[in-house]
Amino acid sequence: MIRKGKTICAPATPPGGAISVIRLSGPDSLAICEKIFFPSDKKLNIRKQEGFKVVYGLIRDGQEIIDDVLVSIFRAPHSYTGEDSAEISCHGSKYIITRILELLIKNGTHAAFPGEFTQRAFLNGKMDLSQAEAVADLVASESRAAHRVALSQMRGGFSTEIAGLRSELLRFASLIELELDFGEEDVEFADRKELRSIILKVKEVTDGLASSFRLGNVIKNGIPVAIVGKPNSGKSTLLNALLNEERAIVSEIPGTTRDAIEDTIVINGLEYRFIDTAGLRDTSDIIESMGIMKTHEKIMQASVILLVDEVTDSPEIINLRAESIRDLVSGSDKKLILLINKIDESAQSDYKNFRQQIKLDEKDSILFISAKELTGLDELRTALSGAVGADRIEQEGVIITNLRHYDALIHVSESLDRIISGFDKGIPSDLIATDIRQAIHYLGEITGQITTDEILGNIFKNFCIGK
Amino acid sequence: MIRKGKTICAPATPPGGAISVIRLSGPDSLAICEKIFFPSDKKLNIRKQEGFKVVYGLIRDGQEIIDDVLVSIFRAPHSYTGEDSAEISCHGSKYIITRILELLIKNGTHAAFPGEFTQRAFLNGKMDLSQAEAVADLVASESRAAHRVALSQMRGGFSTEIAGLRSELLRFASLIELELDFGEEDVEFADRKELRSIILKVKEVTDGLASSFRLGNVIKNGIPVAIVGKPNSGKSTLLNALLNEERAIVSEIPGTTRDAIEDTIVINGLEYRFIDTAGLRDTSDIIESMGIMKTHEKIMQASVILLVDEVTDSPEIINLRAESIRDLVSGSDKKLILLINKIDESAQSDYKNFRQQIKLDEKDSILFISAKELTGLDELRTALSGAVGADRIEQEGVIITNLRHYDALIHVSESLDRIISGFDKGIPSDLIATDIRQAIHYLGEITGQITTDEILGNIFKNFCIGK
Repeated sequence: MIRKGKTICAPATPPGGAISVIRLSGPDSLAICEKIFFPSDKKLNIRKQEGFKVVYGLIRDGQEIIDDVLVSIFRAPHSYTGEDSAEISCHGSKYIITRILELLIKNGTHAAFPGEFTQRAFLNGKMDLSQAEAVADLVASESRAAHRVALSQMRGGFSTEIAGLRSELLRFASLIELELDFGEEDVEFADRKELRSIILKVKEVTDGLASSFRLGNVIKNGIPVAIVGKPNSGKSTLLNALLNEERAIVSEIPGTTRDAIEDTIVINGLEYRFIDTAGLRDTSDIIESMGIMKTHEKIMQASVILLVDEVTDSPEIINLRAESIRDLVSGSDKKLILLINKIDESAQSDYKNFRQQIKLDEKDSILFISAKELTGLDELRTALSGAVGADRIEQEGVIITNLRHYDALIHVSESLDRIISGFDKGIPSDLIATDIRQAIHYLGEITGQITTDEILGNIFKNFCIGK
Repeated sequence: MIRKGKTICAPATPPGGAISVIRLSGPDSLAICEKIFFPSDKKLNIRKQEGFKVVYGLIRDGQEIIDDVLVSIFRAPHSYTGEDSAEISCHGSKYIITRILELLIKNGTHAAFPGEFTQRAFLNGKMDLSQAEAVADLVASESRAAHRVALSQMRGGFSTEIAGLRSELLRFASLIELELDFGEEDVEFADRKELRSIILKVKEVTDGLASSFRLGNVIKNGIPVAIVGKPNSGKSTLLNALLNEERAIVSEIPGTTRDAIEDTIVINGLEYRFIDTAGLRDTSDIIESMGIMKTHEKIMQASVILLVDEVTDSPEIINLRAESIRDLVSGSDKKLILLINKIDESAQSDYKNFRQQIKLDEKDSILFISAKELTGLDELRTALSGAVGADRIEQEGVIITNLRHYDALIHVSESLDRIISGFDKGIPSDLIATDIRQAIHYLGEITGQITTDEILGNIFKNFCIGK
């Protein structure tokens, strides 16, 4: 997969816009450009241009003009990949993009693998592995929180700290291994007290990071929400009301209309994903009454459950329904929000009495709404935010979102535990040294100081082409 | 619609790629950039940069970092629009694009209307109207011929010639009007013989252009092809075979896989559009036997008709079928290709005898194929190319593809006819002057030397945002 010395190319933008950008990277980027790109200033030698320069001219295949384009030039090491690079900005026609890529390949570039540009940036030391992984997360980010976490990770985030801790451990590992070299002489180069305090410090940091993963996962993948309730209680009306308001907000900026494929909304920078809304969307709630099993599944997958009742339902019935959900999720920290819907159809002016008859768990909440008349939706959004502690996110320091990092951190933590209990039990230095080496290894996996082709392959195969 | 002095912004690429480009144009482009973009070289003053320079730095909203980006700077008049411009190249996340656009708008830019960048290029004299129109065609071009015609038009194509003819006519119009000023004195400033020869020259050019429209339309919109035949003759197998081979060719270049929505194939740089394939695609040919009416409609819409028969059909029956199609299209120049399918199921080694029994019109052709085994498809592609005279396209000079231009050219031609018959009949100069003025007007409409807000509005509303 690693093709050193080769020059690669790929489209960096999808077709269908006003313009398209094609990327080249590798030692021959400018020499290959020169074969197909003819600057309007004929005296200009593309290979002699300095970086951060834009040149206007024509892409030609022999005498045939393909397009007039802008070419941005970047010189090693001051480029995204650290190599000589060029970005060709052409008209956004699929035909033109294909012709230019064909020309580039005919003249010696190779079609880039997914993520190959970022992989080169990593291999050339422009970023560490966790930063490279954050690039893909950044491109995929759909909410403020997801964006903030990916950007912070891409800009160095926790990897500097991890690398620092790792080199401290490395120093101790060397000292202990030196002791072992002296064999039976029983010298002690590594101060055991200092080592213990370093180990504890590393453990504090890595455990903190590992415990942030839960929140990180929520930020990256959205918070699963289940809408449940008896048929015709207004579940689909509620879903549509929430989604429509969301779309109205998003589509204010021209050219950025959100695809209406996924049923998600963003509140206070966090994404909420409605689970299995197929049944709700085809408006016939009746179908769902056949699907008790399906409702159970939805509840089990959700972090927040919206139970939709009607204001004409008796409080006893509502209590029974809520209780059956609580039974189902007991022991978990899923949040339950009771929505008493259709207040537009009720003559009551005050729900104090009603509310008092509803039994609520400590983590439950109750709202009186009209999905039809869009009453109480703001309160619902606030309740959703509150249910997942969204306010915590802004204060939270570093948050990890990547399962690979979480996995490595858990391994680090286990090694550190063994080291500490080893100290306590007076276990021989050579065994302790092994555990330190293991912690060092897993810390290095996060930043990419330790890596294998397999790890790299797994990471970059999920990137898009051109990144 | 025309907002002089305002600075506009829009995304120039769709979201979903590795990177996205946001465009700004207008006098405050760099001043607005300065408010949200912070170069990594802190000493660098963005407003003092020269054009064709790329700057690396951060987009920030107050203290919050939105993304690290590249900003390309262009200074008036050396930019696409002729104004100060900037292109922000950010990570391709919808969230980031929206945040940057919001920031730009908050700081004084206006969201661009569709085509507003190109409209500004036209208004600032960077291109004439027919060139501006060609930009949209170029972006939409899907085949070599469509690309070639759009590019030639964008790069000046016929508009220089039109403008030249127009100014010659303008000179004569002034001379004749001067004569009219002298009233009864009966002077003749404009040499009638020279004028007549100019008129004939203009007419030759405009008639030539007008007659190229038919080919131009085919190039731009594709050639409509009907596949007809009795149920189970293998129409859907044939369609799928042609489309699959097409897709296999196109998808060789990574990242450019053709959307499989429209049933089109490209042969020798021309696009062929299969009409109403819904019935064919759901494989049950039987449906079509109920739709004789639909088949008639298809035939009427097509330029080329593929009649699919089976090698086991009797030549008499095939002749009858072909004849009924010829009756339907008689007088038109639609081409008929008889496809004798399923030769894989036949033991015949030679179809000479069979062929001799089929009556063919001069413009018809016949092929023996097996759609199932992909036999004869290359010959079919050659026959399709031949049927529309695709070889002519490469030799053809200037081709117009735009209905608006065609319409104007027809009006020019009519005016010129009136002028010539006016000469012949000795009609007074003031009437001739009116017709010359009219020809001048319509020629000016093509290049945009004469224009109205309505014309501009109609043209640019069909552009995408960011172009």
